[in-house]
Amino acid sequence: MLRTHTCGELRLSHVNQIVTLTGWVQRLRDKGSLLWIDLRDRYGITQLILEEGSTNAALMAAAKNLGREFVIKATGEVKERMSKNDKMPTGDIEIKVTELIVLNAAKTPPFTIEDETDGGDELRMKYRYLDLRRTPVRESLMLRHKMAQQTRIYLDSLNFTEVETPVLIKSTPEGARDFVVPSRVHHGEFYALPQSPQTFKQLLMVSGFDRYYQIVKCFRDEDLRADRQPEFTQIDCEMAFITQEDILSTFEGLIRHLFKAVKGIDLPSVPRMTYDDAMKYYGSDKPDTRFEMKFVSLKTPLLDKEGSGVVDLTSGKNFVVFDNAELVVGICAKGCAEYTRKQLDELTEFVKRPQIGAKGLVYVQCKADGSFKSSVDKFYTTDDLKKWAEAFNAQPGDLLLIMAGETDSTRKQLNELRLLMGEKLGLRDKNKFSALWVLDFPLLEWNEETNRYHAMHHPFTSPKPEDIPLLETDPGKVRANAYDMVLNGSEIGGGSIRIHDRATQQMMFNHLGFTPEEAKKQFGFLMEAFEYGAPPHGGIAFGFDRLCALFGGSDSIRDYIAFPKNNAGRDMMIDTPSTISEEQLKELGIQVRN
Amino acid sequence: MLRTHTCGELRLSHVNQIVTLTGWVQRLRDKGSLLWIDLRDRYGITQLILEEGSTNAALMAAAKNLGREFVIKATGEVKERMSKNDKMPTGDIEIKVTELIVLNAAKTPPFTIEDETDGGDELRMKYRYLDLRRTPVRESLMLRHKMAQQTRIYLDSLNFTEVETPVLIKSTPEGARDFVVPSRVHHGEFYALPQSPQTFKQLLMVSGFDRYYQIVKCFRDEDLRADRQPEFTQIDCEMAFITQEDILSTFEGLIRHLFKAVKGIDLPSVPRMTYDDAMKYYGSDKPDTRFEMKFVSLKTPLLDKEGSGVVDLTSGKNFVVFDNAELVVGICAKGCAEYTRKQLDELTEFVKRPQIGAKGLVYVQCKADGSFKSSVDKFYTTDDLKKWAEAFNAQPGDLLLIMAGETDSTRKQLNELRLLMGEKLGLRDKNKFSALWVLDFPLLEWNEETNRYHAMHHPFTSPKPEDIPLLETDPGKVRANAYDMVLNGSEIGGGSIRIHDRATQQMMFNHLGFTPEEAKKQFGFLMEAFEYGAPPHGGIAFGFDRLCALFGGSDSIRDYIAFPKNNAGRDMMIDTPSTISEEQLKELGIQVRN
Repeated sequence: MLRTHTCGELRLSHVNQIVTLTGWVQRLRDKGSLLWIDLRDRYGITQLILEEGSTNAALMAAAKNLGREFVIKATGEVKERMSKNDKMPTGDIEIKVTELIVLNAAKTPPFTIEDETDGGDELRMKYRYLDLRRTPVRESLMLRHKMAQQTRIYLDSLNFTEVETPVLIKSTPEGARDFVVPSRVHHGEFYALPQSPQTFKQLLMVSGFDRYYQIVKCFRDEDLRADRQPEFTQIDCEMAFITQEDILSTFEGLIRHLFKAVKGIDLPSVPRMTYDDAMKYYGSDKPDTRFEMKFVSLKTPLLDKEGSGVVDLTSGKNFVVFDNAELVVGICAKGCAEYTRKQLDELTEFVKRPQIGAKGLVYVQCKADGSFKSSVDKFYTTDDLKKWAEAFNAQPGDLLLIMAGETDSTRKQLNELRLLMGEKLGLRDKNKFSALWVLDFPLLEWNEETNRYHAMHHPFTSPKPEDIPLLETDPGKVRANAYDMVLNGSEIGGGSIRIHDRATQQMMFNHLGFTPEEAKKQFGFLMEAFEYGAPPHGGIAFGFDRLCALFGGSDSIRDYIAFPKNNAGRDMMIDTPSTISEEQLKELGIQVRN
Repeated sequence: MLRTHTCGELRLSHVNQIVTLTGWVQRLRDKGSLLWIDLRDRYGITQLILEEGSTNAALMAAAKNLGREFVIKATGEVKERMSKNDKMPTGDIEIKVTELIVLNAAKTPPFTIEDETDGGDELRMKYRYLDLRRTPVRESLMLRHKMAQQTRIYLDSLNFTEVETPVLIKSTPEGARDFVVPSRVHHGEFYALPQSPQTFKQLLMVSGFDRYYQIVKCFRDEDLRADRQPEFTQIDCEMAFITQEDILSTFEGLIRHLFKAVKGIDLPSVPRMTYDDAMKYYGSDKPDTRFEMKFVSLKTPLLDKEGSGVVDLTSGKNFVVFDNAELVVGICAKGCAEYTRKQLDELTEFVKRPQIGAKGLVYVQCKADGSFKSSVDKFYTTDDLKKWAEAFNAQPGDLLLIMAGETDSTRKQLNELRLLMGEKLGLRDKNKFSALWVLDFPLLEWNEETNRYHAMHHPFTSPKPEDIPLLETDPGKVRANAYDMVLNGSEIGGGSIRIHDRATQQMMFNHLGFTPEEAKKQFGFLMEAFEYGAPPHGGIAFGFDRLCALFGGSDSIRDYIAFPKNNAGRDMMIDTPSTISEEQLKELGIQVRN
């Protein structure tokens, strides 16, 4: 090594040793007769000192010419510092430099390499290799490294085998768009990049691998949002001879292990909620359970409870909006009764934004003196409002926020408002963690565009046996053996117990609108595999980028990816995608359309 | 779990316990009143027993209907066996079955699921999920899993950080052909799949990551041979602030760790040899050093030693072939003096095959009585031959095999003969391991097709500083700071110390025939990065598939890949590459050429 020590390891115990350090010049402080250099590497920062008189004059002069981010090698004696810096691990010592070699000069970086930088997003993406020098970015990737290590340690300890599945696979129209790769050898034919190793991991179960995992790149050619990348990483797992309960306990174990090993946090055992309840109480299949603020219904649709347990505290008072609504539902914002007119208007504007699309918002202020003030005072008496407040278990000082309309859309709208109120009330602390299992997802969801049912999870998910008859009569009501793990309101993982027999799989494909020929062409190998002794199996996949971001307390997965792409799917640093030569296109048997 | 135990764990200590096992029916032995079932899972095989009289009659009848590879769940009591089988870990016990559930039936597999199968290559590829059930195939993948685990354990312990580099990168014409991925968002533009994460790992060094590794998929669109796959896996590593010596010792450490941890073998420290010596003594840059049989020159080219140490034991005896040859060189095959005429002819035929292309082969049999018999008896006296034998340090009973011609091609031809003789003499034992570092590779190699020099390793490899002047005068003689690790005659890894300054990198691109514009378009980001403080750095990449195959004692990397492609780059199981829809092509802005 060009160095004897890193910039993070010298302590008082090293005093008097002659050491050689290498690294980047973080900062120069030139006091004329004294020159300090903060030398940085991945492991820390160490202070170098040169002093007029005792330091060779030529060396002193050379050192004064160093610039930020120069790469140097410095040799000298470890000295105890006069004024120690207890904020840095090496703060007790400094190096009295006797030799200094510039290993590489550096131009002035386009932005400052500091924890807080002046570089804009685009500039930092273009010079990602400089952005990666900044401590917070480096630490994000070190966190990711630790997460991967600990994931493997946990799964290895449970006899999971890591198996690499292929990247050049087959394009299938179900699901998101595939990235494809033209075959040079077979003109007109294409490989596809996997959206997940789903069928391969199932085949590994058919092979008897029993427990499989892989931390694996997956690809989805979808229009990107801030938190989506065309290539992303999954912790992909599958187990055979299990029940859903085994999957839940094994992977709850993984998350709790990660919290303990990476963050030193004892995550309590993960509570469970059905999809139906998640929608009913949070209007979302990924509720943020860091805070309560559950939905309370003032008027429930008749169908919801098949007649029993129906609530209606709103009808018959001439308030047409509520009278016409299928559902009247709200949240109780603790201590917000004194919200001003302006604040209340802002909330109304928020839910009326086109992205949310609500028609309006009804509020009830539960005043400290026990009175109520509401936007529907003309329709409801104090007694009425008191009943509402009781339903919400509201206390004086609380604010009820109530929405009405068609059940599903109203719940979704109220979910957005709930999250906003959680934010406003400081209930969404990034350093607090709340995980949840959401169970019993619907098997199918209706797609307006294609005018047919699509698999909500994927076509290999097994329906609950007791719901199979509904496939013919009311497909949307069929529940699947499918589950998601939610952390702080983000879906971090999802999976299902799979179909493992040909007949059921064929039936599923039928219901999804595949002709037998299409099913055979695309998934014939899997259905055939099910005929040669397929064990019951199921699995889960975690979104590793998001998981790392949540562990790091960040909203952006990009910070946790070494070389991310921008929102247009472009790598700004290497400038790709880019054109290729006509010769390459010819060899591949393709051409660009005009 | 559907089971209480695996099929590999029950012992005498479990006797009298009621257990439930799941797995595949490996074999049924039906003796009428007694029925044995060998039940298999990944962990082992356990014998089930059913007995007329004591077993419920319906159960007995049902069990008799089981077929091979049925998936069952069996409950019963663990009993001590009457006749134990000490060849299997569970051979002391059997399960007296009281309940048996068929979890899934199985059709008769297209080949037998046994260690030795009757299935041909193609059939086994099509039904890879069944092939993977066979113990040797499963064990190959378990070995791979262990290799990956132990690689990470070793590198993690040395502070290497695992960083994922992107899969959707930029196509560059240098090197092998890229697989490309059309961009839907940017019509006419393409991503490429990485042949290696080379530039990214170098950028990570510029970023200060200091020590990087990744077990990573790479892609090369080349015509396939038996031991090549379009997608393959590398252990990819890079270190900063190092000398070549640090790389050699760190990664020699990795290989020795793997041998110890995975195979319990203490590999001795890895010897080193220059590229020039490897060519001189073995005619190969990847010599199989499990056996000696070094080349001995009877006539060396004058240039080879610049006049000193020149050997010539062949000229002036009217044997035109040797007189006209630049090099006369041979090997000594111990104990082969008594090879028959037929055997000797076969060797001559072997070297004259077009793949090898030699003109002929001269032999000298060193007879037990001290006499010589040779194919060039007419030209050389016994004294001459005695001198040859001395040069070879041959003993009575040995056979000298000598070839002549132009230096490079003769060495290559003799290398093939040496490997054949090693094979014939049983010196290439798959359970013996010999590693070697080959150092100081040439920087450039001449390419007849393109009529220019290409980088032998890649364009980022640094030339030896003392050889830089030769770049102008004799580029082929410039040595690089490049090294390969060789195991049993296979290259398992290679790397180099990299260029880390813009000027040298620009000069290299010039010498490789890049115009400044081409260099900038393709690698501008890297050259720019070198201006912002790039540390000295270098690295290595190991071919993980091959490494696993060698550890497993196999010639075929395919056995160590879960879902390999065939020689035409086709996945026979999922049947890909395959056509995609016109709609997909349209969206991607491409069309298939006629």
